[in-house]
Amino acid sequence: MRVAFQGEPGAYSEQAVFEYFGEVETVPCESFDVMFDSVASGKSDAALAPIENSLAGSIHQNYDLLLRHSLHITGEYFLRVRHCLIANHGVKKEELKKAISHPQALGQCAGYLHSCGIKAEQVYDTAGSVKMLKESGARDTAAIASKRAAKLYGMQILEEGIEDNAENYTRFLAVQREPVAPQGNAKTSIVFTLKNVPGSLFKAMSVFALRDIDLTKIESRPLAGKPWEYLFYIDFLGSINEEPAKRALDHLGEYAIMLRVLGSYPRFIP
Amino acid sequence: MRVAFQGEPGAYSEQAVFEYFGEVETVPCESFDVMFDSVASGKSDAALAPIENSLAGSIHQNYDLLLRHSLHITGEYFLRVRHCLIANHGVKKEELKKAISHPQALGQCAGYLHSCGIKAEQVYDTAGSVKMLKESGARDTAAIASKRAAKLYGMQILEEGIEDNAENYTRFLAVQREPVAPQGNAKTSIVFTLKNVPGSLFKAMSVFALRDIDLTKIESRPLAGKPWEYLFYIDFLGSINEEPAKRALDHLGEYAIMLRVLGSYPRFIP
Repeated sequence: MRVAFQGEPGAYSEQAVFEYFGEVETVPCESFDVMFDSVASGKSDAALAPIENSLAGSIHQNYDLLLRHSLHITGEYFLRVRHCLIANHGVKKEELKKAISHPQALGQCAGYLHSCGIKAEQVYDTAGSVKMLKESGARDTAAIASKRAAKLYGMQILEEGIEDNAENYTRFLAVQREPVAPQGNAKTSIVFTLKNVPGSLFKAMSVFALRDIDLTKIESRPLAGKPWEYLFYIDFLGSINEEPAKRALDHLGEYAIMLRVLGSYPRFIP
Repeated sequence: MRVAFQGEPGAYSEQAVFEYFGEVETVPCESFDVMFDSVASGKSDAALAPIENSLAGSIHQNYDLLLRHSLHITGEYFLRVRHCLIANHGVKKEELKKAISHPQALGQCAGYLHSCGIKAEQVYDTAGSVKMLKESGARDTAAIASKRAAKLYGMQILEEGIEDNAENYTRFLAVQREPVAPQGNAKTSIVFTLKNVPGSLFKAMSVFALRDIDLTKIESRPLAGKPWEYLFYIDFLGSINEEPAKRALDHLGEYAIMLRVLGSYPRFIP
């Protein structure tokens, strides 16, 4: 099985691929577009796309790509983002003067670095910082990246989980060419648009509330170039193979200008 | 007036400060935390915080900071993100072999660069790429950054608006220590939490629907460490100084575990 992800080898997304799919072949892609194309064209069997981060929010671009392609969500995975302090072999923490990584990773470890008296220096990529550090052989410098990146470049992990906020999760969606038919504990993701008149969303939500269907996500997004229409993302518990969800979506179809089921899939249980 | 923003001089956020506040003194901050502290402590009179981008989604971290501080939203601004191709003086577009910038900016101009036969090379910052280019004096290289960054470093703009997707907007919120009392066309931003039982959000939304109050944003966010509670962000048209909004919030208070008004402020009219 070949699974596409966005980023360089050793990226957090690649780590998520191994944790979710097991021992598969990974296909690094330079952008989300390339990653979706890789699945659509058959070059990859699946992609694992980050869709929201607990600190940074939803990644609209991947919703756009789901709408543009005829692909299906077949699963979800929550990755706890655990940053590692990585150094060349034999280096001790006391020797460190600076740490290099992507600005976002440095920012998420700012308190830790400050308490250790280590200066932060920005580079463009987390996994890339490990590669750079290995090539330089520097003993006063650490990289901040995933466990996977340390393993890939055969480097030493001095400390794991150095992020200041432990509640740093990224939710990924598995995307494939064929839908799955989940049984039992399932989740369904839909996208729809409504006329922007007062109460329209309220009506739309009544189709779920009247059937005691539990929503796990709702998000509105103004439609580019159409200031009077909104796009809504909703995730709810249940599968489109079950009667209540089927009826709710039929009912929603009466109000929605556009309605698309992105997929029903097994719910992630930590 | 001193206005804090996150980033280096020449960042898109600084451009937004000048467009929204006019000719003020800007205070560059290395992180969103530092930016909020700058206003809370009185070092700055206001901050302009990015809260959502049309392609990248909401920036949850700034919602977290709004909740942590007793500050008020006093206005909003939408910045159209227009990337510029920037070069040293006298350089012609035909001489260019590569472009340097932040990975996100390079990604948003990937189609343009490809069509011009220009290779992309990642650096950590948009404004920083202009500074680097100036220092190197290179004639085969361009930087991709804001108009403001080109002006700041006295560099030449070869082309403006080179992003592939023209619908690239960032919404900013002005944040100050004292609330404003808007008259007329106002917007109000609130945050609240609900028990995660089926239909709870439906009830919460009824307080607006029953009063014909129009929502312009709704977003759910699972609460870190509390899997059965959700945080909701809602923006609606109207001011808390008006009767219908006052009554709706009173009514919402009956269901919500926590409810906080982040501010009522004049709605941005493009």
